[in-house]
Amino acid sequence: METFQRLESEVRGYCRNWPVVFDKAVGSHVYDETGKPYLDFFAGAGSLNYGHNNPKLKTKLIEYLTDDRIVHSLDAYSVGKRDFLKTFEEIVLKPRGLDYKVQFPGPAGNNAVEAALKLARKYTGRETIINFTNGFHGMTLGALAVTGNSMKRGGAGVPLDHVATMPFDQYLDGQTPDFLWLRALLEDSGSGLDKPAAVIVEAIQGEGGINVASASWLRGLADVCREYDMLMIVDDIQMGCGRTGDFFSFEEAGITPDIVTLSKSISGYGLPMALTLFKRELDVWEPGEHNGTFRGFNPAMVTGSEALRQFWSDGEFAAATKAKGDLVAARLGEMAAEFPEVGAHVRGRGLARGLAFEDTGIAKRLAAESFDRGLLVETSGPEDEVAKLLPPLTATEEELTAGLDIMADAARAAVKASQPA
Amino acid sequence: METFQRLESEVRGYCRNWPVVFDKAVGSHVYDETGKPYLDFFAGAGSLNYGHNNPKLKTKLIEYLTDDRIVHSLDAYSVGKRDFLKTFEEIVLKPRGLDYKVQFPGPAGNNAVEAALKLARKYTGRETIINFTNGFHGMTLGALAVTGNSMKRGGAGVPLDHVATMPFDQYLDGQTPDFLWLRALLEDSGSGLDKPAAVIVEAIQGEGGINVASASWLRGLADVCREYDMLMIVDDIQMGCGRTGDFFSFEEAGITPDIVTLSKSISGYGLPMALTLFKRELDVWEPGEHNGTFRGFNPAMVTGSEALRQFWSDGEFAAATKAKGDLVAARLGEMAAEFPEVGAHVRGRGLARGLAFEDTGIAKRLAAESFDRGLLVETSGPEDEVAKLLPPLTATEEELTAGLDIMADAARAAVKASQPA
Amino acid sequence: METFQRLESEVRGYCRNWPVVFDKAVGSHVYDETGKPYLDFFAGAGSLNYGHNNPKLKTKLIEYLTDDRIVHSLDAYSVGKRDFLKTFEEIVLKPRGLDYKVQFPGPAGNNAVEAALKLARKYTGRETIINFTNGFHGMTLGALAVTGNSMKRGGAGVPLDHVATMPFDQYLDGQTPDFLWLRALLEDSGSGLDKPAAVIVEAIQGEGGINVASASWLRGLADVCREYDMLMIVDDIQMGCGRTGDFFSFEEAGITPDIVTLSKSISGYGLPMALTLFKRELDVWEPGEHNGTFRGFNPAMVTGSEALRQFWSDGEFAAATKAKGDLVAARLGEMAAEFPEVGAHVRGRGLARGLAFEDTGIAKRLAAESFDRGLLVETSGPEDEVAKLLPPLTATEEELTAGLDIMADAARAAVKASQPA
Amino acid sequence: METFQRLESEVRGYCRNWPVVFDKAVGSHVYDETGKPYLDFFAGAGSLNYGHNNPKLKTKLIEYLTDDRIVHSLDAYSVGKRDFLKTFEEIVLKPRGLDYKVQFPGPAGNNAVEAALKLARKYTGRETIINFTNGFHGMTLGALAVTGNSMKRGGAGVPLDHVATMPFDQYLDGQTPDFLWLRALLEDSGSGLDKPAAVIVEAIQGEGGINVASASWLRGLADVCREYDMLMIVDDIQMGCGRTGDFFSFEEAGITPDIVTLSKSISGYGLPMALTLFKRELDVWEPGEHNGTFRGFNPAMVTGSEALRQFWSDGEFAAATKAKGDLVAARLGEMAAEFPEVGAHVRGRGLARGLAFEDTGIAKRLAAESFDRGLLVETSGPEDEVAKLLPPLTATEEELTAGLDIMADAARAAVKASQPA
Repeated sequence: METFQRLESEVRGYCRNWPVVFDKAVGSHVYDETGKPYLDFFAGAGSLNYGHNNPKLKTKLIEYLTDDRIVHSLDAYSVGKRDFLKTFEEIVLKPRGLDYKVQFPGPAGNNAVEAALKLARKYTGRETIINFTNGFHGMTLGALAVTGNSMKRGGAGVPLDHVATMPFDQYLDGQTPDFLWLRALLEDSGSGLDKPAAVIVEAIQGEGGINVASASWLRGLADVCREYDMLMIVDDIQMGCGRTGDFFSFEEAGITPDIVTLSKSISGYGLPMALTLFKRELDVWEPGEHNGTFRGFNPAMVTGSEALRQFWSDGEFAAATKAKGDLVAARLGEMAAEFPEVGAHVRGRGLARGLAFEDTGIAKRLAAESFDRGLLVETSGPEDEVAKLLPPLTATEEELTAGLDIMADAARAAVKASQPA
Repeated sequence: METFQRLESEVRGYCRNWPVVFDKAVGSHVYDETGKPYLDFFAGAGSLNYGHNNPKLKTKLIEYLTDDRIVHSLDAYSVGKRDFLKTFEEIVLKPRGLDYKVQFPGPAGNNAVEAALKLARKYTGRETIINFTNGFHGMTLGALAVTGNSMKRGGAGVPLDHVATMPFDQYLDGQTPDFLWLRALLEDSGSGLDKPAAVIVEAIQGEGGINVASASWLRGLADVCREYDMLMIVDDIQMGCGRTGDFFSFEEAGITPDIVTLSKSISGYGLPMALTLFKRELDVWEPGEHNGTFRGFNPAMVTGSEALRQFWSDGEFAAATKAKGDLVAARLGEMAAEFPEVGAHVRGRGLARGLAFEDTGIAKRLAAESFDRGLLVETSGPEDEVAKLLPPLTATEEELTAGLDIMADAARAAVKASQPA
Repeated sequence: METFQRLESEVRGYCRNWPVVFDKAVGSHVYDETGKPYLDFFAGAGSLNYGHNNPKLKTKLIEYLTDDRIVHSLDAYSVGKRDFLKTFEEIVLKPRGLDYKVQFPGPAGNNAVEAALKLARKYTGRETIINFTNGFHGMTLGALAVTGNSMKRGGAGVPLDHVATMPFDQYLDGQTPDFLWLRALLEDSGSGLDKPAAVIVEAIQGEGGINVASASWLRGLADVCREYDMLMIVDDIQMGCGRTGDFFSFEEAGITPDIVTLSKSISGYGLPMALTLFKRELDVWEPGEHNGTFRGFNPAMVTGSEALRQFWSDGEFAAATKAKGDLVAARLGEMAAEFPEVGAHVRGRGLARGLAFEDTGIAKRLAAESFDRGLLVETSGPEDEVAKLLPPLTATEEELTAGLDIMADAARAAVKASQPA
Repeated sequence: METFQRLESEVRGYCRNWPVVFDKAVGSHVYDETGKPYLDFFAGAGSLNYGHNNPKLKTKLIEYLTDDRIVHSLDAYSVGKRDFLKTFEEIVLKPRGLDYKVQFPGPAGNNAVEAALKLARKYTGRETIINFTNGFHGMTLGALAVTGNSMKRGGAGVPLDHVATMPFDQYLDGQTPDFLWLRALLEDSGSGLDKPAAVIVEAIQGEGGINVASASWLRGLADVCREYDMLMIVDDIQMGCGRTGDFFSFEEAGITPDIVTLSKSISGYGLPMALTLFKRELDVWEPGEHNGTFRGFNPAMVTGSEALRQFWSDGEFAAATKAKGDLVAARLGEMAAEFPEVGAHVRGRGLARGLAFEDTGIAKRLAAESFDRGLLVETSGPEDEVAKLLPPLTATEEELTAGLDIMADAARAAVKASQPA
């Protein structure tokens, strides 16, 4: 571990909470270099929806590499990309009636967000983007400008502008009607809000604290966008690819965003890959106007295609995820009920779930106690006040139960430690 | 190909010049789906310095994947990352006397640039970055602001600021002493130049047209940075990892940048990976202040470590690259001499070489004629006036000769086509 | 009038509503070049609180000029400036317990605002300024950024940033508690609101539509500023100098802003002059850090001093203004009651009053009908939906009554014209 | 003087060098409150080209005020404004073949600059303005962004952007051809310079150090603007109204700027007034898109009209100014010749002259010694290295000689004090 301290920047983060050196990983488990297993309810921050090293994807990946198929093709045409596009069209787009063009904007989620923002501004000729409190969209300058976290914003070193922030669903605890403020600003030529190009929103804010936008709020937002001629960007990087049950997090609301970003689990294997999807008429890009070296990382497309075929050819996987989500929600509900004195409550949808505490500090302790017991759980929210569960969607009921048992123990220990002696 | 037209965004670029579907790739060759081979003097825009699917790296990669070693670890500690850090220290940093900390800023070069700019601004508390004409640093908003290309800048949709542009070496054709303008601005409190945080520079501008900064110019720039207390960032994403012979492109100049970015060939296998290196005292990051999902893509570290061991344990590889570079330069020189009427001339260093034409249009034709003859060559420069050669550093003398033979033919055809009948 | 059309820019505005050529002006009346009198309920947009060419100020002004006293002194010391400073201290600051330093930032209100914003940013080291919907602060780039009007913002030609807009009092019609949104943003480190330097607010928004901030709202805002360590800037350019009765518009609320801007009526005679006042500890300016040619226009200081002596040595003038304001309010109330069908209602405080109509278009018609009847009345509000009354504070009861009689007639005509036949 | 220290902000500047309280002023002299005269070679920083309280203008001013003519009319039509427009057309525009529209942008020079920048951006739809090293254009945010002085820029508290700085004439001491850098940037689509809306330039930089742009350089700049479709803004606030001999400073070069700003001496009496002039086809303002309270300060127009009639009806005044300028230049040349050891040299044109010293510090001392001897002289340049002479254009030969005698003495004292004992 001394190697890391000597050579790796102080910016490193997760390793501080999990001070072991990981080596292997299969399904819902990772193993440190001593062979100790950890049940993983973090899943690469949502990048491993199908578990670690999913065997069916692994087979395809190794086959592809073994056969010397092309690995890196920038945005040249390749067999791997064609297969991905066709599979994505057949399995994802067509059944959902989505006529989207697909952009490969680079390997990371922030590339997908930057491309989305650039396209929205180019298409509309406007500059302001509406974002939402506690939104998280990435660390590059454009994506950071629409991200709420003040510590991360402070890292920019320059002002982050061309953005106007609005309250996310339930941000003001129901003390004000939805979109009252946004609509007032848009309707009033004296409000000071320059006409926005687009809104960018997550259906569930993962980093922001597992804050769930209700279907009706999302529909309301889509209505505002339509009425005021703004594009609607849904950032589905963390909540897409089935995390909430459906492939896209916004399906439940019955809306069709103008632009959608995907990354994290889209390759299915933790390989860097990202997509920006948009309505056909928005495709005003010049050739090469947005480019990048790792846009054509074929192995990720190969595992991505196979993941779609394996998990999304019918509705079973989504249904199973929702059922598992209910199970997790129920157990978390029991935990919350155990600790009313620290304001414990449950958040989330599908297999994106959180146990939040008004008494900030408990969630971090809970995560630490979980780690000691062999469970990886992250915290989120502006004060790290939420224990955030993103187990692999492929986790078995037994694994979920085992993890929740650990978590319940950890919660008890954390709450106890928070009480005055 | 209809699939791509129907589903992929108009932003796609390279595929327009190379309208075939690639499938396999080994060493210096790629193959389209009909099995037709192409000699690749493009090498993933410098991402495949060791050729496609290098067998030694492939063995390690498949072994790693087969053994279910961890693929995706964010910034948790992993055996793969530790091995990479140690190897990088032993083989790259120590022998060059570099006491750098290593940041894994995300999978793409733009992540490395964004992290570099953020850190420079944070460390100095200043905002302005000095960049250079025809610099290229990436498509995310921070990186794009320091990039020169006007078409790509136009894609931003918002002003790109906090930047002041200076002439790159030889930009003004020797009509003005080096750094006359920059020094004048820095010395004069009335110049309007707000004190800069840093300069960002490429030792050879690849996208900008294979423009080579001389060693003395780079030393001069380092002097200016020291005198005026600005950080020096060398973006070595395209020219690092041995492209110019030495591992870093700036070694020849004998300078030590404050911050260095690496990506493209750092994994050795075309896998997405990037590094931001900086002097130990600059490591003022807060934990997690810059984060991202694909910072810990272990397979890339595994092939990256092996590439360092295979190619950089001694000086042979660098020497061979320089020798090959001389060979390429000599042949290009012969070609240039053949076409004085269109202002043909040779640019470059090591295996980053260009054949430039004053008569713009010829290079694009040359690239097309090369493709027809089975050779992949890119163009670069603001008017695409340079045929740009980035062959794999592992290309054999025979392959280089074969490619240059094709190119000579293609050049003749291109020049001929450019002449009035 | 052809002269103006041929030579003056299309940017000219008021002249379009009042297409006569004015020549003379005394007290509450102006006269066009044919000698036709107009009762002036506009008073130079609040610059002529003591009427046109007030005889006591005129005497002092002509005396000063006749005696060849210095007119233009930049920021050198002058007898005229010393007299103004002493008088301002004795009559304005001391009795109100205000320990303000005085800056002469230039001749116009926008200079006062620009200086206030610069000082707030310099003092706090922060960039964001909180402004309010429908605020109006001036046309220079800094002042325009905190101004709400979209047409005027559009004139900037560059993005207007470093600003976050909040709802003014009653903006959301009581559907949400005061400062709910602002407090939520300030309390939440994930809100995306970068810590603000200051808020800038008008106690009554004149250009914005005679929107009155209640005393309790202003106190609430002052509380928020104190709690969250933000400076409070009150822009009193239009509402200061007695427009609301008290010298400062914020006195009624019992608050002490950190920074106050004054202009318009501060010279008392329509001479260009502006002040930026701030708490002693905020005076962190470097000598000459903010300068300008017309900071030391002594005749304005001379009439300004005399105006203070004439009108503010005791409380009579303020009391009279309030009484006149009540009179105007009562008459406007009667008018409003006459036209419930077009949503007529009264706004304002002191002698800043408005008759607003839900049916936009009526106020503009009312102003035109008033002009035809010899009364100058402006409109304001984002849709020009408010007939705005800013009569000289020295207007007699008879003049006020005469003007209101005209206005009542004009209102009837305007409402009638708005009805479907 | 204690009054000022107690009540006036630390931002005050000139008073620190001239610690007396001024009271009266006639022609070329000002008098402190003890009656001590000072010969004024500063002339309100160029605002008093016709001397203090010029008797002919004074008569008109007092007459206007006495007759209760309208003082403050915003942008309503007035007799005073019509007379000014006609006079300006007849005496200034027509004889010079200038078909300009006239905007009254507010009372201060910065208002004229802000309006010019806004209009250039609106007309072209572009954002970047080219400015020049050591340019000075004002303290409001838009004007400050194109101003070079770092101390004043630092006062902004926010980044100053949308600007690219180029070298002023002779800035690089003839080591590089004129416009080499600017043309290179404009010609090269990879240069990173976003297509500019306009350039803003002073024909002689007053605050910047009496740096003179040669006629050929100005013509060259006008050529560049024409070739690259950029507007040319000449800021003639300090150097216009006859300071260089001709009414406009750019006449000598035979160019016609697209936009011209005037202020300072345009009223002729030190009254706040400013103009933005522009070619007829540029008049794309919406009514009221740029407004302001003190745009219609009629007394300034009245003295302004009279000044044009008195001084500009024929060519005599310009010729006299040039002759006086030669006299001053000759005497300064003698002084410079006296002190080669401190690098003394003469700068300027017409009656804008400077005695510059390589040994910074001497000019400030010279100014102080001059003050002690009854002469007001300002310093300018980034290091205050220039003693700057802006005597009234109406100064007699005797006054000029008297002042120059004092200055010669003061220079000797200053140089002597700078020598090591």
